[in-house]
Amino acid sequence: MLAVVLTSGGMDSCVTTALAARENDELGLLHVSYGQRTERRELQAFSDIADFYQVDRRLTTSIAHLAQIGGSSLTDRKIEVSRANLESTEIPTSYVPFRNAHLLAIATSWAEVIGAGRIYIGAVAEDSSGYPDCRPEFYRAFEQLIEVGTKPETTIRIMTPVIGLRKSEIARRGVELGAPLHLSWSCYKREDVACGECDSCALRLRGFREAGLKDPIPYATAI
Amino acid sequence: MLAVVLTSGGMDSCVTTALAARENDELGLLHVSYGQRTERRELQAFSDIADFYQVDRRLTTSIAHLAQIGGSSLTDRKIEVSRANLESTEIPTSYVPFRNAHLLAIATSWAEVIGAGRIYIGAVAEDSSGYPDCRPEFYRAFEQLIEVGTKPETTIRIMTPVIGLRKSEIARRGVELGAPLHLSWSCYKREDVACGECDSCALRLRGFREAGLKDPIPYATAI
Repeated sequence: MLAVVLTSGGMDSCVTTALAARENDELGLLHVSYGQRTERRELQAFSDIADFYQVDRRLTTSIAHLAQIGGSSLTDRKIEVSRANLESTEIPTSYVPFRNAHLLAIATSWAEVIGAGRIYIGAVAEDSSGYPDCRPEFYRAFEQLIEVGTKPETTIRIMTPVIGLRKSEIARRGVELGAPLHLSWSCYKREDVACGECDSCALRLRGFREAGLKDPIPYATAI
Repeated sequence: MLAVVLTSGGMDSCVTTALAARENDELGLLHVSYGQRTERRELQAFSDIADFYQVDRRLTTSIAHLAQIGGSSLTDRKIEVSRANLESTEIPTSYVPFRNAHLLAIATSWAEVIGAGRIYIGAVAEDSSGYPDCRPEFYRAFEQLIEVGTKPETTIRIMTPVIGLRKSEIARRGVELGAPLHLSWSCYKREDVACGECDSCALRLRGFREAGLKDPIPYATAI
């Protein structure tokens, strides 16, 4: 089976790529930059992970509209990236409105053209930052949309293999699978060394800590 | 109510914009170029229609990935734009895989940020070219996706006011509403004068003819 994987370059997508590599004959890796602060560093992580798995079929693209639209600290320089508050139940400022729908739409068009039957995405529900487009029901709704919005002969399943896992379980799973976590990049704020303070760093660090593992990437400071 | 309208610049979106202008206090007009052959001419039509309705809130953006992905005669210069065959039940070469999902995702992100409660799109089901992403069930599935994929307080309805109309009814409705059909552009192939031969021209011409109206734009040749 040919599968498309949304490989952002973060820890979750890195482990998802490892799982997809085990479950399919052939992969197409997709990376989308959307004007987020660390887009160059994430693209580097994508290339490194794609090289690691020796995947030639790659699509890298860039969309301007999420940054034009704004509304998120990830794409709008006027909104500050907040320090992590993992106890909060509010949607954090890093929420990019409806972002994963854009990523999945690109993956779906590509999958339909190259004949891929699966799309992998490393969304995480429970242990995530509370983004509405990371919940299982979002992916079921998207599968329904693909069913009615593509050619009759097109059948594409959306695979979310880490959606029910905690970050600690993802770290452990990644190590078991030999996923190149040392090549991944999660920080929302910096491109040289991970800041250690944003939501994404905080979740990653807590995950490794809870798993009793050492995160292989360097940090400026670790909260 | 503030509403976002996907105004491509074609006849259907022109009439949809006219309907949206009547039904809402304020509009935001959205235009997306996606590497289609006639993108400059369509953008011009968008600007002309926005000027006509004196709408200041505009978002124009351009996406590269549909052209990168290809698979359609609209975006891939290696595939020829076929001459119209309005009797065919096959999906024509101009089908851009899953295109309307990309357009609606952009409209949804924008609507969520500016607080719009409606998105208008000029999709046409029956009298269209048989694109799967133009059917009513696609829009109901997308509303469901918005419901689960945006903030809890976000409620956005998708309005498809011409989806059940024939092209002749759209032409008649446009004339009744005083829609600026002379500013619209439908041709898939040429940017100077409409070719009169592609699917889109053929449908438009037949619509005006059946309505007993004269299409106000010039044609190179009319089949």
